[in-house]
Amino acid sequence: MPEDRLYFEDFTPGVSLALGPKHVTAEEIISFAREFDPQPMHLSEEDGKASLLGGLAASGWHTASMLMRMMCDSYILRSSCQGAPGIEFVEWKKPVLAGDTLQGRSIVEEARISRSRPQLGIVTFRHELENQAGELVCACRNAVMMRTKAGGDANAHA
Amino acid sequence: MPEDRLYFEDFTPGVSLALGPKHVTAEEIISFAREFDPQPMHLSEEDGKASLLGGLAASGWHTASMLMRMMCDSYILRSSCQGAPGIEFVEWKKPVLAGDTLQGRSIVEEARISRSRPQLGIVTFRHELENQAGELVCACRNAVMMRTKAGGDANAHA
Repeated sequence: MPEDRLYFEDFTPGVSLALGPKHVTAEEIISFAREFDPQPMHLSEEDGKASLLGGLAASGWHTASMLMRMMCDSYILRSSCQGAPGIEFVEWKKPVLAGDTLQGRSIVEEARISRSRPQLGIVTFRHELENQAGELVCACRNAVMMRTKAGGDANAHA
Repeated sequence: MPEDRLYFEDFTPGVSLALGPKHVTAEEIISFAREFDPQPMHLSEEDGKASLLGGLAASGWHTASMLMRMMCDSYILRSSCQGAPGIEFVEWKKPVLAGDTLQGRSIVEEARISRSRPQLGIVTFRHELENQAGELVCACRNAVMMRTKAGGDANAHA
């Protein structure tokens, strides 16, 4: 196991983990939209401008998926993460437009040991992404299952 | 405007709109995971089997994105949808595994006219997806903005 592996015990309330930066291209917005959310404002600059979003705008699910990738690159892939039962909320506060650069943070809001499985901890994060103007574009809260140091790493024993 | 275009007035509480079916392949799961959620259980059958998920399992964000595509194909693309401010919750109840076929429904739970913009209505949906065994795999609730018949269709006037 690498020395820098992160366990439940590392995610104490108040810990903040940096996300991004991630530059968002028109090609990425259109590619995601063609597959998962082919609404006009996600497919062309012209239709984006004619919409409430004001330009070629990423699907909200694309923004959430980019957030997930930023979490993976920041801490999930070197953690004992065992998945998540869901999302408490996602707020899309401002459009994410082609050319934007996103960055932000995951902040630990709560951490407790699972009552039914004491080798697992439940870490609740608030995630925030801002654009290059410092405007909050996306906020999200969810609980993630992490193995404890005592419980070890499932993959290490696979 | 096509005759079958759907407006706020068409989404009354209790209305249920069919979603899917959508067959989920291993290739799709791995392709999404490589881009957005490269955790081992989303990248190989072997690591999926060794995880709590029990097999090569779709990222939860992939399942949510497939849900969005099913909504688009069922009703969003022929509606006066103007986007959504966020998601109230997403619950991943069971893993979505390679080879699964998903289907479900969007159920209108609430519908009201916007106080600030009376040409817009707010429609709150509960979305549910089940696998081929009839097990609920994903539930989600969110509010969507829809133009009223009186307010017309922004794209038609663009």
